[in-house]
Amino acid sequence: MEVLQAIKERRSYRSYLDRPVEEEKLQAVLEAGRWAPSVMNLQPWRFIVIKDQDIKDRLKKSCQETLQKIYQASGWGWVSRFSLEFLSQAPVIIAVTGDPQKTGADQFILETGRGYAFSCCAAVQNMHLIAHALGLGTLWFTLYENDKVKGILDIPKELDVVSMVVLGYPAGTAAQVKRKPLEEMVSVIG
Amino acid sequence: MEVLQAIKERRSYRSYLDRPVEEEKLQAVLEAGRWAPSVMNLQPWRFIVIKDQDIKDRLKKSCQETLQKIYQASGWGWVSRFSLEFLSQAPVIIAVTGDPQKTGADQFILETGRGYAFSCCAAVQNMHLIAHALGLGTLWFTLYENDKVKGILDIPKELDVVSMVVLGYPAGTAAQVKRKPLEEMVSVIG
Repeated sequence: MEVLQAIKERRSYRSYLDRPVEEEKLQAVLEAGRWAPSVMNLQPWRFIVIKDQDIKDRLKKSCQETLQKIYQASGWGWVSRFSLEFLSQAPVIIAVTGDPQKTGADQFILETGRGYAFSCCAAVQNMHLIAHALGLGTLWFTLYENDKVKGILDIPKELDVVSMVVLGYPAGTAAQVKRKPLEEMVSVIG
Repeated sequence: MEVLQAIKERRSYRSYLDRPVEEEKLQAVLEAGRWAPSVMNLQPWRFIVIKDQDIKDRLKKSCQETLQKIYQASGWGWVSRFSLEFLSQAPVIIAVTGDPQKTGADQFILETGRGYAFSCCAAVQNMHLIAHALGLGTLWFTLYENDKVKGILDIPKELDVVSMVVLGYPAGTAAQVKRKPLEEMVSVIG
């Protein structure tokens, strides 16, 4: 699939079929993450592939508690109605963790370096695009508490769970989400 | 160009030809940013396209001062030798700014929400990939001080300059940067 087509057609799926992801497709998704650019080529990521049903169920339960907290703090109606079934339903979840020590020179400019997290995001976006090109669906998921997830997945304290990529064959289609026109998001100097 | 090819072949270029970027290619790069996924579809970005030579020269001067600071703090040899000529040489620099207010539900979990910045990173990575597919070169640049850049580009204080995309026709080739093998960056649970 052409790059621009993948970029424009990629969608966020919140419902998945009970159908496993072929091993070669999973490897291609991870490979796409591997080739992301990273700050000083530090490759600060580690990809944790979760297929175990019990672990997925525990993640869902933990994130449901987190959603409850968010609802109490925000009062946002959609949060109370947001179903996390996809966390136990999707055949694969990839937790993308980053090492805040591997963040490059921005640690000397900012209070906390963020290059490691940005590199992880590049890997995540690569994964979304190749997954779409392979006929898979994804969701970029961040509504979890870092400490709780580290406990469930046995991730060392010093790492940061930057994002999760929910991966599987989508159940049904997802409508294109509208974008503002380019004129509203671009300024030109020169 | 196929998605996986673009992901694997993309390189970081630090030297550019004195050749303008065609307007339709620039628009395609911005369009790729526009179609990035964003938290709650807030599209928290604004893309500032810089072509003006004087502004590019001022950016370079400011970043040279920043590099000096980084060198003093880090003692890293490569920092003292790092040339920023590409900032005045490249025909286009796209400053990708994000609005920390448009960060979604993570503001209720984290001290500071970061969904807005992650969304901007997805836009940046999209830009890199489509630029490569169009025969252009890019560099993901973050070695600047936010306040100084906001002063030069007249960006409102409340926004965050998340990253810059240096864009142009590359002068010469860039070698493939090695990656660790996949086995060293993947764990499987399940």
